[in-house]
Amino acid sequence: MSINAVPSPVPSASDDAESLRKALQGWRADKGALTRILCRRTAAQRAAIRRAYAFLYREPLLNCFRYKLSRHCLLSLDFWKAMILWTMDPAERDANLVHEALKKKQRDETYYMSVLIEVSCACTPDHLVAVRRAYLALFGCSVEEDVAASPAIQEPLKKMLVRLVSSYRYEGDECVVDMDVVRMEASQLAEAIKKKKQPRGEDEVVRIVTTRSKSQLRATFQRYREDHGSDIAEDIDSHCIGQFGRMLKTAVWCLTSPEKHFAEVIRHSILGLGTYEDMLTRVIVSRAEIDMRHIREEYKVRYKTTVTRDVVGDTSFGYKGFLLALVGRED
Amino acid sequence: MSINAVPSPVPSASDDAESLRKALQGWRADKGALTRILCRRTAAQRAAIRRAYAFLYREPLLNCFRYKLSRHCLLSLDFWKAMILWTMDPAERDANLVHEALKKKQRDETYYMSVLIEVSCACTPDHLVAVRRAYLALFGCSVEEDVAASPAIQEPLKKMLVRLVSSYRYEGDECVVDMDVVRMEASQLAEAIKKKKQPRGEDEVVRIVTTRSKSQLRATFQRYREDHGSDIAEDIDSHCIGQFGRMLKTAVWCLTSPEKHFAEVIRHSILGLGTYEDMLTRVIVSRAEIDMRHIREEYKVRYKTTVTRDVVGDTSFGYKGFLLALVGRED
Repeated sequence: MSINAVPSPVPSASDDAESLRKALQGWRADKGALTRILCRRTAAQRAAIRRAYAFLYREPLLNCFRYKLSRHCLLSLDFWKAMILWTMDPAERDANLVHEALKKKQRDETYYMSVLIEVSCACTPDHLVAVRRAYLALFGCSVEEDVAASPAIQEPLKKMLVRLVSSYRYEGDECVVDMDVVRMEASQLAEAIKKKKQPRGEDEVVRIVTTRSKSQLRATFQRYREDHGSDIAEDIDSHCIGQFGRMLKTAVWCLTSPEKHFAEVIRHSILGLGTYEDMLTRVIVSRAEIDMRHIREEYKVRYKTTVTRDVVGDTSFGYKGFLLALVGRED
Repeated sequence: MSINAVPSPVPSASDDAESLRKALQGWRADKGALTRILCRRTAAQRAAIRRAYAFLYREPLLNCFRYKLSRHCLLSLDFWKAMILWTMDPAERDANLVHEALKKKQRDETYYMSVLIEVSCACTPDHLVAVRRAYLALFGCSVEEDVAASPAIQEPLKKMLVRLVSSYRYEGDECVVDMDVVRMEASQLAEAIKKKKQPRGEDEVVRIVTTRSKSQLRATFQRYREDHGSDIAEDIDSHCIGQFGRMLKTAVWCLTSPEKHFAEVIRHSILGLGTYEDMLTRVIVSRAEIDMRHIREEYKVRYKTTVTRDVVGDTSFGYKGFLLALVGRED
C-alpha cells in the first residue's frame, strides 16, 4: 500500500534501531536520517523497530522523540510531533487524535472534529475496532461515551457521531448490493435532505449513513445522482446548514471517495492563516500508507497545483522533508 | 469459570473425537456419552475437539449433529439443537441467536429479543466485538444494520438496541468511578424515569445505559437507591410501560446483576405453556461457563425451588441429561 519505496533488501530492525540511535545523538539530531529511515518503512516494520530499539537501549523510541520535543526550538516542534505520530502504533495514534479532538478547544472545530469521521468512515472497520480498544486502554472510557457526554457537540450531530464511531460495517468482497434497498434509501435520503422532512428525516439519514456497507452506499449515492440529477454531497451542501450538514458531507465523502475530503483538508490547512500544521500532519501521516496517490491526483485536478508544491511553499526544513517523504514523488 | 468438572487428566482432543464418533454411530446415537464428553469440556477444549474431528473424519462435527437433527424423532429435537449450540464457537452461536431473534417472528417477543441485550450487556465487551465480527461473516451485514432497519422494532427501543449492540465499554480493573458523574446521572435517571421528562429524558437514559462502564453504572444505581429510596429496576417496572420499559429493565439487570435476568428467563421458559425449550437451552448453554452458580442461587432465593428440580419436572430424557450436566450438581 505504501507509496514510499521500502529499500530492498530492507535492513534488520536492529540495524535500523542502531542508525536511529546515532541520528538522535547531539543537540539537533539528524532529521534527514530519521526521515530517510522511518518514512521508508511500513507500519509493521516500524513496530519491529520500536521493539528492537526498546530491547537494545532499554528505553522506548517514542520517549526519545518526546524528550526531543520537550527541548525543541520552535522551528522543529512540528517535525517532532509528526515523527511521534508516524512512529506510533496506528490504532494508538488515532485514539490519541480522537481524544485530542474531543477534549481540546480547537480554533477550527469542524476540521478538527472531522478526525472522528475520518477514523470511523475512511478506515477499515477492523481498524476502527482497534482504535476503540486503544482508546479504552489509554483513557479509561470508550470513544462513544466521551462523544455522547460531550457538552460541545449538539444534536443531531451527536447522534450521528456516536453511531459512526460505534459502527462495524460489512466490507466483504462478495458483498451483494440489495437494489431494492438502494432504490428505497436513495429516495428516503432525497426526501430528508431536500424537503427537510421532519421529524424522522434526520433519523433516516443517520441510520443509512451509519449502518450500510460502503458498497451499498456507493450504489445508493449513484442511484441518487441518477434519480435526482445532482450529487448528494452538493445537495447536502446547499440544503443542510450548520455543523451537522458539514459533518454529514464529510461522512459521505469519507465513506465513498475519501480522497476528496483529504485533499480539501490539506488545502485548508495550507491556505489557512499560517499553516494548520497539526491538521496537515494528521492527514499526511494517516493516509500515507492508504491512499496518498489518489489524494495527490484529486488535489491536482481540483486545485491546479500539487501537494508537493503547496507543502514546499508553506513549511520549513526538517518538517518539510518529512512531509515530502510521505507525500511521495510527484511529477 | 466452568462449573462442570473437567476430568483430570483430560483426554486428548483426538481421543475425544474418537469417542464422539463412536457415540454418534447407530440410529439413536449414545446421547449420554455425548453429554458426558462435551459437557465436561471448556470452550477452548470443544474447539480443539471440533478441529480434531474434522481432521480425523473429514467432516465437521457440527454437520454430524445437524444430520442427526434433520432425521430426529420429535423426542430428541431439543437435544440435538442444544448440542449444536453448545459445540459451536460461542461468538458464532451468539451471532446465530441474535440473527434468529431479529429475523424470525417469535411467539413471545420480549424474551426472544432480550438475547440482543444479553449479548451486549451480560457478556464482555470483547465477546460482543467477536459476535459482531461473526455476524458480518455469516450474514453479510452488521448487527446494528439489521436492528436499525427492522420494521418490527419501534422507537425509542430501536435507538437503545442499536447503541447497545454497538457498544464497547470500558471494563478495566483499575476503573476509577467518577462520583460527580454518578451523582449527576443518578438524578438525571430519576427525573427521566419518574417524571417522564420529555423530550430529552429518554435520550439521557439511553446515553447513560449504553455508554457507561459497568462499575460506573453499579455506583450510579446504588446512588439512585440511596437518593430515591427505591431500586431503579422497580421504578422502571412501575413507570415505564411497553416494550421499551421491559427491555430497559433487562438491560439494567444484565449490566449489573445478570443472574436476576437469567433466573427469570429460566423460570418463564419452564412455566410457560409447554416449555420454551429454545429459550431454556439458550440461557443454560450461554451461561454455563459464566455465572450458572449465581443464577442457581438467585433462582433458589426467588422461586423457592431449584433449577434442577424445575428442569427435571419439565423436560425429557436426552435433553434433560444435557441440561442437568450444564446446570451442575445442586444440593
